[in-house]
Amino acid sequence: MTTSATLPAALVQGREVAEAALRAAVGRLDEGNRLVAFYHFGWSDAQGRPAAASSGKALRPILALLSARAARVPQDVGLPGAVSVELVHNFALVHDDLMDGDRERRHRATAWTVFGPARAILAGDAMLALAHQVLLEVPGPMGAAAARLLADTSQLLIRGQAEDLSFESRSEVSVDECLAMASGKTSALLACAAAVGAQLAGSEQIAVGLHQYGWHLGLAFQLVDDLLGIWGDPAETGKPVLSDLRKRKKSLPVTAALASGGPAAEELAEWLGRPARTDPDDEAELRRIAALVETAGGRSWAHAEAERRSILATEALDGLNLPADVSADLQAVARFVTRRRD
Amino acid sequence: MTTSATLPAALVQGREVAEAALRAAVGRLDEGNRLVAFYHFGWSDAQGRPAAASSGKALRPILALLSARAARVPQDVGLPGAVSVELVHNFALVHDDLMDGDRERRHRATAWTVFGPARAILAGDAMLALAHQVLLEVPGPMGAAAARLLADTSQLLIRGQAEDLSFESRSEVSVDECLAMASGKTSALLACAAAVGAQLAGSEQIAVGLHQYGWHLGLAFQLVDDLLGIWGDPAETGKPVLSDLRKRKKSLPVTAALASGGPAAEELAEWLGRPARTDPDDEAELRRIAALVETAGGRSWAHAEAERRSILATEALDGLNLPADVSADLQAVARFVTRRRD
Repeated sequence: MTTSATLPAALVQGREVAEAALRAAVGRLDEGNRLVAFYHFGWSDAQGRPAAASSGKALRPILALLSARAARVPQDVGLPGAVSVELVHNFALVHDDLMDGDRERRHRATAWTVFGPARAILAGDAMLALAHQVLLEVPGPMGAAAARLLADTSQLLIRGQAEDLSFESRSEVSVDECLAMASGKTSALLACAAAVGAQLAGSEQIAVGLHQYGWHLGLAFQLVDDLLGIWGDPAETGKPVLSDLRKRKKSLPVTAALASGGPAAEELAEWLGRPARTDPDDEAELRRIAALVETAGGRSWAHAEAERRSILATEALDGLNLPADVSADLQAVARFVTRRRD
Repeated sequence: MTTSATLPAALVQGREVAEAALRAAVGRLDEGNRLVAFYHFGWSDAQGRPAAASSGKALRPILALLSARAARVPQDVGLPGAVSVELVHNFALVHDDLMDGDRERRHRATAWTVFGPARAILAGDAMLALAHQVLLEVPGPMGAAAARLLADTSQLLIRGQAEDLSFESRSEVSVDECLAMASGKTSALLACAAAVGAQLAGSEQIAVGLHQYGWHLGLAFQLVDDLLGIWGDPAETGKPVLSDLRKRKKSLPVTAALASGGPAAEELAEWLGRPARTDPDDEAELRRIAALVETAGGRSWAHAEAERRSILATEALDGLNLPADVSADLQAVARFVTRRRD
C-alpha cells in the first residue's frame, strides 16, 4: 500500500469491452429494474438521464477475460463469464448496502436510499437471475459448467454475508472465523472470475489452478479492503473516514488485534463491548481505537498476510504453463490488488 | 369456487416425495439461512425447534413430477425440477412479503417480521441460488436446458413483481397490464413447473405443450387468488379479511371493474384515488367497496376468465398424446386450482 499500482493497458482495454457487454446485458432487464441497475452502475442518474460516474475497478471482469486468454482462446470467449461475475458482484453490493444500512458507495447515494428498499431488493434479484441467464445462453457443456461454478459461488457469497451479519451480534469472533467469512464474501467470487474464462474454454486444469490463484487473491483483496476501511483516505475510498470502526465491524485487522492478548487488545475488546455512540462525530475517539488496533499488531499482521496471500496467488500459477503475457498480467493484477489505495 | 376440489392420491404422494427432497436441499444451506428457510417452510419455529405447520399446497412440485410422468419417465426424474421451482416460488414469497410489508402468511408471522429484513433478504437470495445449484447438478444437456428455463422464469417473476410495485404508485392500470403482470408473477413459474420434468426427460415437444398448459393455469390461479383476496374466508386463506382491498391493490377483479365504466366503476375509482385510511378497522367501508367491484362486474368477469383459462389449459394438452392417467391428473390439478378456497 506504500505505492499505488496501475493496470496494464491490455487489461484496461478488456475492462471497456466487458463494460459494453455488461451494459447490453443489463439493458435486457425490465424498465423498473433497469433504471435501478443503471443508476447503481453509475450509467445514469436517478431519473435515467445518462451519467458518467465511475462504475468501479471491474477487477472481476478483467480476470474473467484474462482467464480465457490463459486457456489460449480469444478473450471474448470469457465475455459471458465477465458479465456474469460482475452481475453477481453487484447483486451482492446492492443487497449488502441495504442490509448493512450503508448510505453511500463510490461517492454516490446507494440504490436503496434513492429508490427505496423494495426496488433495491428486486433489482439485486434481477441481477442475480440475469447472471445465470447470461451463462446458460452459452451453448454446450462449457456454458453449463460455468453456470454451475457461478451458482455454487453465489451460494458461498451469500453464506459469507450470513456469517458477517452474525458477527454483529456476537461478542467474540476468531481470526479463523473472520478468514472463513472473507473467503466466502470475497475469495469465492474472485476465484470464480479467475476460473470462468478457462471453464468456458473447456480447460478444466487451467480453471482449477486459476481458481486457486483467485482464492488467495481474494483474501489479499479483503485484507487491503479492511486496512482501507480503517486507515483509508475517504477521498479515495468513497467511504466515510474510519468507517469500519465507526460501525464496530469485526474486520480482519480488528480480530487479529483482539487475538494478540496484551493491554491494547483488552482496551479494544472493552470498547467493542460498549454500545455504539449515537453522536456521529467522535473522530478523535475512533483515531484512538485505530491506534489500539495498530499497537496490538492488527495493522502489521494484515499487511503481512495480504503480501503472503498475494505471493501464494502468483505461486498457484506455477506449472500451469500459461502464455508469458497472461502470466505477467495476472501478476500485475495481484500487485494492483495489494497496492491499491481505492 | 362453489365446491372445493381435492387432489388425487397419486399427487398427494408426489407432494410428500418432493417435500422430503426439498428439505434435504434446504438442509445444505449455511446455518443462518437454513434457520430462516426452515421457519418459512413451516418445518421449524423461530428457534429451530421442529414444527409441523402447513408448508402450502406444493402445486409447483406436484406439477414438476407430473411433467416427468407426462414424458413417460419415472417421476423422480422430475425431482430436481420440483425442488427448484418450489425454491424459486419461496424465494419470491420471502422477498415479496418484505417488499409488500405483509406480516402474516399461512397463519404465521412472515420471515422478515421474525428475523428482520436483512436475514429475510439473504435467505431469499440463498433459495434462489440453491434452485440453480440443484438443477445444474443434473448432468448432461437436460440439466442445463432445465436450468436455462428456470433462470428465464426467475427473471419473468422478478419483472412481474416490478410491475406490481409500479402499479401502487400509478392511478390507472389497464386489465391488459394487470394480466401481463399476473403472467409474470404467477404463470411463468407454473408454466416452468409444468414443463421442467419433461425438459429433464429430454422431451422438448411435451415440455412446450405443458408450458402452455401451465401458463393458462397460472392465470386461472391468479384470478382465483385475486377473488379470494377480496371475498375469501380469512380462516381458509390465512390472510386478513378483505386484505387486497385494504391494501388498495389493483388486482384483476378491480381493474376489470374499473374498465367497465358506469357509476359503480366511477365510485370505485374515486375511492382508490383517496389516500388510504390509517384506521385498520373500516371493514364496513371495505365491504361496500367489494360490493362496488361486484356491481361493476369485476367478480363475475374474474370467475368467467378463470374458468376460460382453465379450459385453455386442458386444451393445451390435446395432441400431446399423454398417458391417460397423467392427462387425468393434469385435469384434476386444473379443477383444483379453479375450485380451491384456500
